Amino acid sequence: MTESTATPARRTPEHAPMHQFAVRDGELVVGGERLGLLAERVGQTPFYAYDRGLLRQRVAELRQALPASVKLHYAMKANPMPALVAFMAALVDGIDVASAGELKIALDAGADPAEVSFAGPGKTEAELRRAVASRVLINLESLREVKLLAGITQSLGVPARVAVRVNPDFELKGSGMKMGGGPKQFGVDVEQLPGLMAEIAGAQLAFEGFHLFAGSQNLRAESICEAQQKSYDLALRLAAIAPGPVKFLNLGGGFGIPYFPGEQRLDLAPIGDNLASLAERASREMPQASLVIELGRYFVGEAGVYVARVIDRKVSRGQVFLVTDGGLHHHLSASGNFGQVVRKNYPVTIGTRADAADREPASVVGPLCTPLDLLADRMELPVAQPGDLAVVFQSGAYGASASPQNFLGHPGCVEVLV
Amino acid sequence: MTESTATPARRTPEHAPMHQFAVRDGELVVGGERLGLLAERVGQTPFYAYDRGLLRQRVAELRQALPASVKLHYAMKANPMPALVAFMAALVDGIDVASAGELKIALDAGADPAEVSFAGPGKTEAELRRAVASRVLINLESLREVKLLAGITQSLGVPARVAVRVNPDFELKGSGMKMGGGPKQFGVDVEQLPGLMAEIAGAQLAFEGFHLFAGSQNLRAESICEAQQKSYDLALRLAAIAPGPVKFLNLGGGFGIPYFPGEQRLDLAPIGDNLASLAERASREMPQASLVIELGRYFVGEAGVYVARVIDRKVSRGQVFLVTDGGLHHHLSASGNFGQVVRKNYPVTIGTRADAADREPASVVGPLCTPLDLLADRMELPVAQPGDLAVVFQSGAYGASASPQNFLGHPGCVEVLV
Repeated sequence: MTESTATPARRTPEHAPMHQFAVRDGELVVGGERLGLLAERVGQTPFYAYDRGLLRQRVAELRQALPASVKLHYAMKANPMPALVAFMAALVDGIDVASAGELKIALDAGADPAEVSFAGPGKTEAELRRAVASRVLINLESLREVKLLAGITQSLGVPARVAVRVNPDFELKGSGMKMGGGPKQFGVDVEQLPGLMAEIAGAQLAFEGFHLFAGSQNLRAESICEAQQKSYDLALRLAAIAPGPVKFLNLGGGFGIPYFPGEQRLDLAPIGDNLASLAERASREMPQASLVIELGRYFVGEAGVYVARVIDRKVSRGQVFLVTDGGLHHHLSASGNFGQVVRKNYPVTIGTRADAADREPASVVGPLCTPLDLLADRMELPVAQPGDLAVVFQSGAYGASASPQNFLGHPGCVEVLV
Repeated sequence: MTESTATPARRTPEHAPMHQFAVRDGELVVGGERLGLLAERVGQTPFYAYDRGLLRQRVAELRQALPASVKLHYAMKANPMPALVAFMAALVDGIDVASAGELKIALDAGADPAEVSFAGPGKTEAELRRAVASRVLINLESLREVKLLAGITQSLGVPARVAVRVNPDFELKGSGMKMGGGPKQFGVDVEQLPGLMAEIAGAQLAFEGFHLFAGSQNLRAESICEAQQKSYDLALRLAAIAPGPVKFLNLGGGFGIPYFPGEQRLDLAPIGDNLASLAERASREMPQASLVIELGRYFVGEAGVYVARVIDRKVSRGQVFLVTDGGLHHHLSASGNFGQVVRKNYPVTIGTRADAADREPASVVGPLCTPLDLLADRMELPVAQPGDLAVVFQSGAYGASASPQNFLGHPGCVEVLV
């Protein structure tokens, strides 16, 4: 939209359009099916539905925008549903896991252990043994892990494959969460790396490269590019003191999706250009290295919806409350209680009346006895009645698995891949 | 502490002392056992432990401070561990449940259905049927529930026992969460009650009284007293238009416990005096009514600890990180991600070195790949090493059941009643 447009200036910021889901006969279409019929197929509400077509489309967009030599890894912490991980494993180049529990799901899903990496502070010795025995790459987070892996390598007769997770001396600007720079529990400070790499060499671990992860949920292409460049330059410096050639260089992820009013979708084009220039440099400067981009939310977030049924419509002192059978216990982040300082609304609609002209300000709440159980706070929504289906968009990542499902003893939610 | 004390003024507010747990041979004592040995008995970390002696003591303190005629109900949403609910059911006068799932636990625990009440917006028809068939009291939240209960009463041949949850026209000042006043999803606005009570009479439901719940986690006795008085006065006005005598008058709870630096324990004495005067009035003005106080957190919060083992000790750019096997996925509220606007530290110690003189500023973090996974942010703690046990106090309420245990695929935590 240019400044010369005739559209009047907007008073309040709006949500980015959720055009990834079509509307047919007034209903949202998810996985090719009208939402009402999909709910009948699922057999219960609330549920999460993840759309295979949208997952495939997102991977294709990334393949199109980024150079072919850059590997795409799925960070399954964003959504560990086994069927979805299996679907993604067939589309992407590798899976990143954050626990032994996730490792099992990834291997069951058919991921190639050669392309699985395992990161996380506080890995237990049992987890490290499972990782070595699985022959996956371990992103080292501390000297303690080097020492444990030395023993495990000897005991199993399998050299531990390791990359060093680096806590760089810069931050990713504009990130929702910062995971590098300053004092951090993640990775090893750059300053400590010479000593650590000598230990790795001494312990006869199979050194493969570096992992740099500056932050997540960033919507500014220029800061992602800057972080990638700085990460690359740092890795190049570190390669000079590494115990072997760099074969694996994980430049992190951080690609965000729009959740809140005023947020726009990320522009992939400059990121693709930037990675192309880094890939070209790498082919000369670190010829054995694969560049890896690790994305969780960006792959799956926009492909998922959370669906809850309206149980009651209450009007209290002029304000409309749509009381649904779902809420905070299934979708903590949509309630505003997961990392947000100020609660803002996710994009929400009434999926069974998606294009209704009859709209009103309404709040969507859940069945819990707490005012925190709020999915939409006074949003302009299609006028809904009991039986209608409320939909929270942008719910494919950090939803079901990141929510306190046992809270207040209500039934758990179901997840379907459609 | 008076102003004339010789102690120098404190620069920063401190946590209330956690003297409810003794220290023996340098270790915290929970359930009569040293923490290290308790961990061996549990067989794994992380775990929650709830101390029977402290639960019993808290009930006794309340019995001492409040008039004998006031009934004490346990709101089990605070901690639904079945063994704990059974223990509490034998100590208190009734159990308040918030779902059919909690209802089952309460009945299994031996609670008397006559003294069980069920509140919550968005109750499903199936839940309402189970409640009527269980012969428990249902706190009505809307006209829709009256209509459903009319049909269920006819179909089961058992009259639904109901109290009306009222959304009053005042708020509880100083509450952590407000659940009454203004537009709310909870209860029925005072203004709508004449019509609702006529419907109850017409539907031949068994009317028993009123439920008023103004808010929770309040540390100011005077605002709790004020809310109780206003609630009582409102109930008395409503009794005049009720379809039958008031037998049950739930004045809510809201008693808080100190979590954060600077917070002090609630003074029960003025609340006891206030309730004594209300009980005296009730004996004249609503002679059939039992006054009920409904408490969750206040019964169980201070009796519980969360215990995680230190896995790694990292020093990053001068800051000490104790990386533990527990974190946000087991104890969301201690991480600051459950209803808090600004993150503050819960009281935390190193339970295996509880009285160590050797202290340092340290952060306690968990194993998750997110900076949100923070149990203590730069607190002054006993100097700890891997193997030590980190303890989060004030963890008996809204802990295990209110946390996203599946997040990142780490093992769940265990709960023990000791």
